[in-house]
Amino acid sequence: MSFALDPRLAADTLAVGDLSLSRLLLMNDSRYPWLVLVPRGENLREIVDLETEARAALIEEIAAASRFVQSLPGVDKINVGALGNIVGQLHVHVVGRAVGDPAWPGPVWGVGTAQRYDESRASRLIAEIRAGLAIA
Amino acid sequence: MSFALDPRLAADTLAVGDLSLSRLLLMNDSRYPWLVLVPRGENLREIVDLETEARAALIEEIAAASRFVQSLPGVDKINVGALGNIVGQLHVHVVGRAVGDPAWPGPVWGVGTAQRYDESRASRLIAEIRAGLAIA
Repeated sequence: MSFALDPRLAADTLAVGDLSLSRLLLMNDSRYPWLVLVPRGENLREIVDLETEARAALIEEIAAASRFVQSLPGVDKINVGALGNIVGQLHVHVVGRAVGDPAWPGPVWGVGTAQRYDESRASRLIAEIRAGLAIA
Repeated sequence: MSFALDPRLAADTLAVGDLSLSRLLLMNDSRYPWLVLVPRGENLREIVDLETEARAALIEEIAAASRFVQSLPGVDKINVGALGNIVGQLHVHVVGRAVGDPAWPGPVWGVGTAQRYDESRASRLIAEIRAGLAIA
């Protein structure tokens, strides 16, 4: 099986590590705590393109990512989405939302401009995510 | 266990029937083939509020709803989302998207105004959904 991350996803995110099914990414946008799960496989576009067992793994990884995001200060709601209208490679967003955040109560996708992390903040957050999700 | 559908979800949708975990609804908006899964349980807000087994059931129901929507003419992409910023009760959208549809390539939530089905079209579509998803 050969897996290659879509270059647009790679450009918009920071790599965190690999879970059992998915590559875990941090969206490089400090407006929201925003993780992205990309199941490692070939030619995956939809959740139905995964086998049943992989789907069960995916929702457990969504749950684990959600728990981490929920643990962050100021997160009131989790938004989970698999859209792929622009980047076709199957990927699942897990986004922490706060009442009154820049897109609230609408969805975050396509709203405003990403505010990139500074390097030290990104490093700290990635270390926290790795610890929270037990990524070596 | 007592389950009550949020009144705003009820007002925006047509009832299709019950799957093993979720109540299945058709969004009353003929712009998109748009199903909504509402896991029957109390005080569910997030996917992580479900037990592991229920999460596995949910993603299989998402897959079944996706397969049905994919089978409809003109559907190019499935969008799956669990947002809940406005209606807090856990619900998962499964939306068929077409290149060039009114919100393309953005998300559908909060864009434009729902165009309600006429009764005969809704009845036919609900019958098709029930047949496609094996709902008695």
